[in-house]
Amino acid sequence: MAKLAGVSISTASKALNGRDEVAPATRTRVLNAAARLSFRPNALARGLISGRTRTIGLLTDELGGRFSIPVLLGVENALANEQMSVLLCDARGDAIRRRHYIGTLLSRQVDGFIVLGDDNDLRPSLTGEIPVPVVYVYGESEDPDDLSVLADDEGGARLAVEHLVSLGRRRIGHITGPQTYRAARDRVTGTRAVLAEHGLTMAGGGPLHGQWTQRWGRHAARVLLATAPEVDAIFCGNDQIATGVADTLTDLRKRIPDDVAIVGYDNWEEFAADCRPPLTTVDLDLEDLGAAAARLLFDALDGRPAAGVVRHPCRLVVRESTAPVTP
Amino acid sequence: MAKLAGVSISTASKALNGRDEVAPATRTRVLNAAARLSFRPNALARGLISGRTRTIGLLTDELGGRFSIPVLLGVENALANEQMSVLLCDARGDAIRRRHYIGTLLSRQVDGFIVLGDDNDLRPSLTGEIPVPVVYVYGESEDPDDLSVLADDEGGARLAVEHLVSLGRRRIGHITGPQTYRAARDRVTGTRAVLAEHGLTMAGGGPLHGQWTQRWGRHAARVLLATAPEVDAIFCGNDQIATGVADTLTDLRKRIPDDVAIVGYDNWEEFAADCRPPLTTVDLDLEDLGAAAARLLFDALDGRPAAGVVRHPCRLVVRESTAPVTP
Repeated sequence: MAKLAGVSISTASKALNGRDEVAPATRTRVLNAAARLSFRPNALARGLISGRTRTIGLLTDELGGRFSIPVLLGVENALANEQMSVLLCDARGDAIRRRHYIGTLLSRQVDGFIVLGDDNDLRPSLTGEIPVPVVYVYGESEDPDDLSVLADDEGGARLAVEHLVSLGRRRIGHITGPQTYRAARDRVTGTRAVLAEHGLTMAGGGPLHGQWTQRWGRHAARVLLATAPEVDAIFCGNDQIATGVADTLTDLRKRIPDDVAIVGYDNWEEFAADCRPPLTTVDLDLEDLGAAAARLLFDALDGRPAAGVVRHPCRLVVRESTAPVTP
Repeated sequence: MAKLAGVSISTASKALNGRDEVAPATRTRVLNAAARLSFRPNALARGLISGRTRTIGLLTDELGGRFSIPVLLGVENALANEQMSVLLCDARGDAIRRRHYIGTLLSRQVDGFIVLGDDNDLRPSLTGEIPVPVVYVYGESEDPDDLSVLADDEGGARLAVEHLVSLGRRRIGHITGPQTYRAARDRVTGTRAVLAEHGLTMAGGGPLHGQWTQRWGRHAARVLLATAPEVDAIFCGNDQIATGVADTLTDLRKRIPDDVAIVGYDNWEEFAADCRPPLTTVDLDLEDLGAAAARLLFDALDGRPAAGVVRHPCRLVVRESTAPVTP
């Protein structure tokens, strides 16, 4: 087929895999060659012969959750690049449904599993029920012998607070979500660590824990300004809270970022980019996280399994809600 | 297995399918029985014998789009209830990638396709390339011989404007997204129809078209209030625009809903429920839409194919941003 298209085997493979580095005209040529040769092996029969179906089971707990989707996209894309397919099962947080789905996926002889958490808390291991390689992504397996690929939330918070300190902010408050969430706790840990490294204490005496909503952000900002009127920066546990904080600061005629700088978390475009003013925030790079999990599953399928926790770095996205302290 | 669990075959089937009407304890019993009997037929070999794989290919164009996910969830759930699985492929709006995926799904002998649009515009038919049943959902196929299952956007707008008129609002404006979007045009059509039926004209003389963002809502509300200061209600093309409109009305010391009522669109929880005040809005019932598409695909697989356009009704969700005119 590569010969018919007049390209190298590697180019043909890249074109079929939809890689960006192949020119559109070349891809068209390769695809046309593939079509003329009816290049469509019977994957089902092939699976029976080789013992491999080139199919991965993706087991999610709550696909409706906003964080699952970019991770899923990253997994799907990485699998497609390896000519593998993904069978999708959403257990909706139901243990019985999950067990049933595991059985279904095994009966379809998937080569491996990716288990996608709906939050980043610890979760019971499923590996005992699954005789093929498993990688956990976003949510961590309780079993340290499993492999879990997680966002580095403590590191993300460090990026945010380092940024504020580097801008000359010294009275930094923290408004975040419920303490029951590991994401909230890890971000508090990172925040405290950076403040301590610079000999600073948290404005208001400690983090304000509430809901992951604008409503909580609006309320908590009033509380923080009452207890720590000198606050010059607020690091928020997500972009919705940050949006609510910005609303209250605007209501109280505080200038953002001149009087108070704000950093959000998540880089949820619809909130962060459209906030008044647009938010500096932390991006979890979730699509990359999903791709990383898929690659680690490939390693396991190739006989190189790993164990433990891999923390995937976050990155800071700077917008107008932060700027240096004006003298 | 049903015997071992001490239930009827129908109950066992419901329990395995994860239907709600089975008591949790019963489901556990059935699942345990299934596990003890190692009830796990080799789906792959069964597929080769019967010619059916009980697998559906779900081809999306942009899973990152917010509207795809609830539709996908509805499809996945409906398939799971019929012991069918979904192979997921996201073409990311790339025609070459889409053709390649169609080949992949056919080589895996899927029983049928669901093609999930990323917007509700017309899209080229793929049916000519696919020898098994296809149902289009959310986005309409250009070929009227195909079956497309769509949200009823004109009907959704009618619900919104009927609601405002029933509350005594008479000077109703409309701020919405780009005219290039069918969703925007259909909602304008529905809005105009209801206004005409009540002998009303649109405040400001016509719809204000812009972006699907809070920023546009904030700006357009200023424009509308300048050209039609008597406006007593604003129907917005989505919840983000409505949030921006609410921001501006609050800035201008207009009371919501007393002075100006607001209706949004989409029932995007994070925006609608947390707006100041919470938004009355139109819900597209996208999960239901996905389930409806799956059921129509089952009909086609059972030899009862349909053609044309099925419009799935929307529903109005009333919150604090609308109330009767105060005398």
